[in-house]
Amino acid sequence: MLRKLSIMLAALLLISGSYAQTIKSPDGRLSLSFSLSSEGEPTYALSFGSKPVILPSKMGLEIKNKPPFTNGCAIKQIDSAIFNETWIPVWGEVNQINNHYRELAITLQQPAVANRWFRIVFRLFNDGAGFRYEFPEQPGLQYITVTNERTCFQLTGDHMTFWIPGDYESQEYTYNHTRLSDVDAEIGKKVYEIGTRTIPGSDYVQSPLMMKTDDGLYINIFEATLVNYPAMHLHIDKKTFCLESQLVPDPIGNMAYLQASCNTPWRTILLSDKATDILASKTILNLNEPCKIADPSWIKPMKFVGIWWDMHVGTKSWNYADINNVKLDETDWNKLTPNGRHGATTEYTKKYIDFAAANGIDGVLVEGWNVGWEDWAGNYKENVFDFVTPYPDFDVAEIQRYAAAKGVKMIMHHETSSAVTNYERWMDTAFRFMKHYGYNAVKSGYVGRIIPRGENHDGQWMVNHYLRAVKKAAKYKIMVDAHEPVRPTGLHRTWPNLLACEAARGNEFNAWSRGNPPEHETILPFTRLLGGPMDYTPGIFRMKMSTYDPQKKDMMVHTTLTKQLALYLTMYSPLQMAADLIQNYEARPDAFQFIRDVAVDWDNSWYLEAEPGDYITVARKAKGKDEWFVGAITDENGRMATASLNFLPEKTKYVATLYTDAPDADWKTNPESYTISKCLVDKNTVLKIKLAPGGGAAISIRPATETDKKLKRYKP
Amino acid sequence: MLRKLSIMLAALLLISGSYAQTIKSPDGRLSLSFSLSSEGEPTYALSFGSKPVILPSKMGLEIKNKPPFTNGCAIKQIDSAIFNETWIPVWGEVNQINNHYRELAITLQQPAVANRWFRIVFRLFNDGAGFRYEFPEQPGLQYITVTNERTCFQLTGDHMTFWIPGDYESQEYTYNHTRLSDVDAEIGKKVYEIGTRTIPGSDYVQSPLMMKTDDGLYINIFEATLVNYPAMHLHIDKKTFCLESQLVPDPIGNMAYLQASCNTPWRTILLSDKATDILASKTILNLNEPCKIADPSWIKPMKFVGIWWDMHVGTKSWNYADINNVKLDETDWNKLTPNGRHGATTEYTKKYIDFAAANGIDGVLVEGWNVGWEDWAGNYKENVFDFVTPYPDFDVAEIQRYAAAKGVKMIMHHETSSAVTNYERWMDTAFRFMKHYGYNAVKSGYVGRIIPRGENHDGQWMVNHYLRAVKKAAKYKIMVDAHEPVRPTGLHRTWPNLLACEAARGNEFNAWSRGNPPEHETILPFTRLLGGPMDYTPGIFRMKMSTYDPQKKDMMVHTTLTKQLALYLTMYSPLQMAADLIQNYEARPDAFQFIRDVAVDWDNSWYLEAEPGDYITVARKAKGKDEWFVGAITDENGRMATASLNFLPEKTKYVATLYTDAPDADWKTNPESYTISKCLVDKNTVLKIKLAPGGGAAISIRPATETDKKLKRYKP
Repeated sequence: MLRKLSIMLAALLLISGSYAQTIKSPDGRLSLSFSLSSEGEPTYALSFGSKPVILPSKMGLEIKNKPPFTNGCAIKQIDSAIFNETWIPVWGEVNQINNHYRELAITLQQPAVANRWFRIVFRLFNDGAGFRYEFPEQPGLQYITVTNERTCFQLTGDHMTFWIPGDYESQEYTYNHTRLSDVDAEIGKKVYEIGTRTIPGSDYVQSPLMMKTDDGLYINIFEATLVNYPAMHLHIDKKTFCLESQLVPDPIGNMAYLQASCNTPWRTILLSDKATDILASKTILNLNEPCKIADPSWIKPMKFVGIWWDMHVGTKSWNYADINNVKLDETDWNKLTPNGRHGATTEYTKKYIDFAAANGIDGVLVEGWNVGWEDWAGNYKENVFDFVTPYPDFDVAEIQRYAAAKGVKMIMHHETSSAVTNYERWMDTAFRFMKHYGYNAVKSGYVGRIIPRGENHDGQWMVNHYLRAVKKAAKYKIMVDAHEPVRPTGLHRTWPNLLACEAARGNEFNAWSRGNPPEHETILPFTRLLGGPMDYTPGIFRMKMSTYDPQKKDMMVHTTLTKQLALYLTMYSPLQMAADLIQNYEARPDAFQFIRDVAVDWDNSWYLEAEPGDYITVARKAKGKDEWFVGAITDENGRMATASLNFLPEKTKYVATLYTDAPDADWKTNPESYTISKCLVDKNTVLKIKLAPGGGAAISIRPATETDKKLKRYKP
Repeated sequence: MLRKLSIMLAALLLISGSYAQTIKSPDGRLSLSFSLSSEGEPTYALSFGSKPVILPSKMGLEIKNKPPFTNGCAIKQIDSAIFNETWIPVWGEVNQINNHYRELAITLQQPAVANRWFRIVFRLFNDGAGFRYEFPEQPGLQYITVTNERTCFQLTGDHMTFWIPGDYESQEYTYNHTRLSDVDAEIGKKVYEIGTRTIPGSDYVQSPLMMKTDDGLYINIFEATLVNYPAMHLHIDKKTFCLESQLVPDPIGNMAYLQASCNTPWRTILLSDKATDILASKTILNLNEPCKIADPSWIKPMKFVGIWWDMHVGTKSWNYADINNVKLDETDWNKLTPNGRHGATTEYTKKYIDFAAANGIDGVLVEGWNVGWEDWAGNYKENVFDFVTPYPDFDVAEIQRYAAAKGVKMIMHHETSSAVTNYERWMDTAFRFMKHYGYNAVKSGYVGRIIPRGENHDGQWMVNHYLRAVKKAAKYKIMVDAHEPVRPTGLHRTWPNLLACEAARGNEFNAWSRGNPPEHETILPFTRLLGGPMDYTPGIFRMKMSTYDPQKKDMMVHTTLTKQLALYLTMYSPLQMAADLIQNYEARPDAFQFIRDVAVDWDNSWYLEAEPGDYITVARKAKGKDEWFVGAITDENGRMATASLNFLPEKTKYVATLYTDAPDADWKTNPESYTISKCLVDKNTVLKIKLAPGGGAAISIRPATETDKKLKRYKP
């Protein structure tokens, strides 16, 4: 359903001087002002009701060899319009999305610079604002080399903020929760469990940046539609609390190469007095372009298991042989001595296919299937993988046959080792190989220092690469799960074959480092997940790594088992892994039942309660089914989660299966202790569930059958 | 025929201290010594008879984070052998090549560095020496990041030298002829007709470097087998006359990334007291690997014409429309207004096909056939060409049909605009497009600043790219003519589908700049051509550019017409263009007859007389035919060329057709004045031909028929 009302205001032409134009959000609560300073500097400001949130903040870009777009401006034209439509996502947390905003488009001229004009376009939503710079084609402006972006966010105070260090290579940090004045990004230099880091300095943090004022206002600064531009980090002025955009340079020090007509990404500011509004916001998606895949019917949300956790806990290896020097063009793989611990074997893969088939799991991922893993990491090696040559113990054709016979899809793995020039040379061949052998989804990886050397993971060239890979995959009808790319910014609206990314610190860090603290999963939905789903790889059932390696006595997953189940709700993704070793699921089929049942695509979602860093409770309805699911998680503090089920349709009784922390559960001392109970619920039920420290609860709900109706009604 | 005698000398193990080992060339004339200094520094020296040519010179590499390979060495082993074989090139100046050298392989250990050993291998030929560094796989050495190479060439004096400025992007300079002490490479910064230059400093020159001592000894320093390494430039110490290797850095300042086991290229020093020996040397080829193409029957030397010179003289354009902002993904090419001067049209191409068919010319090149030329240069644009989309006025299929019907091969053009990441993404698709439309040869180009940004034309990454392109072309049975790559170093022995490169200042510079002085073509065979054939694009018949554009009144080709004909002999290449507009050939069919007749592949060649910078006279026998050709060229001074025909078989009379400068010819004032005469010659004939200033002579010789025998005998 598409409805658009457009109301044009009169165009006004003024020479210079200060001028203010204000618009309000559709519901009138937010207001945004644009004005020019006496030096012709464009500025904007944003308020929530009567409260200023962003004080007048400067804007603009600096470019090479030409005057900047930061001052000397005069207004050439002002356009304003209201836009209101509802659109249907291919998959999502909801099955329809309303896109309702007021737009203010300012056309600016720079009289001192001949033939130069540009636009700043603002869109004001009920839950926030977005704005971008637009450069139309014009005689005086065709090729633009951006040397700096000067977008400011002048905050009103020293807000509490959840932050990770600015780093042009990685977002795999735990979050810090401090005031802006206490940010010290240099601590990132000691986070040795992250292999590749480029930290610009102590005052730089990454976006999305989640803040809360002392008055209880939630502010999130981020970007949408990151295309053909580097990622936006933020510099903090610790005296003035002004944040400024910090772009990511290329090897010769420029930020971006643009060709008019072109637009920058949208800079976004989400605002609400309710934390759940931030989680539920669709503004980032609404600022992205509509779907460009004409027939997306081949794109299917899925669950998968994989030969993967074994390698992280150390019971198996990616590499086939224990040597550390191989050459793709020269090594005779058949002559190597297998180390006996190779994960990606035909035999072990068949076990996973069997498990998937028996449990209704759509896919099986296998890492380490292709030659080159013996020396793949840390050697800055370009000719590292060819993506088409399997090890001697991995029979691609036999596995294809076996999986197809069992109705299971194999998921390909393309670890690039960040040798991206190599990957781009191989990509067509690698995708054709996939289609030939029945693979329709690929997990890609970008571990290590980028080749082209001198480029960063977050630079423009790499941003363009990630999208090239997604577009080429779409041509081949291949779905993508990208690990270690730039953090997503809503492009999955346009390219829904991009099912998920990693681009944050996932569950795997628990297997071989100090891991993720219990609050970690209560923060990610307020930061990383605003831009798109995350392949967090939840569902670990055995928490202590000493199970596998006595040397790892302090390493563990920092949650209870039922919190791992709840993550299937709170860490939204259309692509969800049941990440543990299948033997750990086979040991606990009762708990695993939840993973069998949980949906990965939704008609609707309700964020019931949330506080960043503390807790989240969310309910969702499975797409096209009479099934609902609730997930509740907490940080290191136990708490009582509250979930009103008034989203359930009237007049029906439902059976709820509750997977909850046992009374003695605790993430640290007793994480695997859980209780499963069934009861009757209905629209009037309000669930009250005790969550252990680092704990969680997962509930599946479906209409009650006659047999179910013998169950007791829910009592808190 | 392959014969190899191998004589092993006893292995000697010594701890440290100076030690000298000397070998002689097979004919005993050259001698090379290796020794260690008291600090364990490897050094070598080279003599010609009793004359030292290279005094003891240090060697070695410096690498990142590990001790260098320059000192602290002890000899672990010495091996010496003689090698003598004759091999057959796929094409060449001769049809068989003798490879005869004495090898000295020094295995060095570095006792202070655990588990470290490497080799320096010398090969001493009758006309020079080559040496390289070899790094075997070993526990202490796997991945090597080269930060500097310290190979020295300590000369005995301030020799006269032909040099071009050290420049990591371009070799398209005219040569300077000065003493080493007078080199000032900074003059390169004012050579504005070269678009992209990276000049490291005033004391850096390029290799190959051609020198002549005051005693009349010719010395040429270069390299062979440049693979997986940056090109070697040379730093001149103007006080000591010591030259030192200068490698080309990558964007982050490293020179090369190696993985043991690996070898550097061969550093070569050619030596003779006869200039013609330098021209005839096969040492560079002999230091390259044998042919790797199992069945090279699809590789065929060829002549071609092309829609190309029109664009250089300005009568036509590469671009279809006169706008300067296009986007591959967005521009509707059918909606552009054609400028009416587009060279690459179906109609004009058919004219060239007709001409080629009527004149026995194998191929037609067409530049500007594919979309993107409107803004292709100087914009540092990555998404610049797709290599598969023709302009609206170029019907690929129709041209394929027309050319095939006439027995003419179309030659593809891939100008990359140095957006090499883009080219690599497109390469498979572009090569498949070629095969689909009947193209079996491609001229590639690398004009502009390299993308990956920060890389140089001469850096390791680009060296690897050029070879990747040749190898992939070989897979598709495609021949390559690469323009603006790194200068070649004999790799066409291994990959004979690499027919030619530009990689020096070609004829085209005459069309739009101060051009090439008359001595230019007497220098290039002593420098650039030692590494491989050059697509010099000879055969221009109309010398003055004012013919096409009155504004270009000082621009012209700086040779006479018959010198242009002689270039088909003196500028050896299996791929030769008849570069002028076909109408200029149609106006002079008598002179063009030489180009129709001249061969491009040879059974044998004889360099009869030569002096770098002054003159060259060469004779060649066509492969598999009773046809011989002689070419003689001079610089700005007229001279008498002498060519003894005693290479002709006995007992036969031959008819020679002589294309010579008319008595009044002069490159500057009367370049197009020529004489054609026929006469009888035989084995005893000694031709003496007057060459005009900037002039030349071309002679074709075939057995005399009965009718021919009525011709007069040759008289000087």
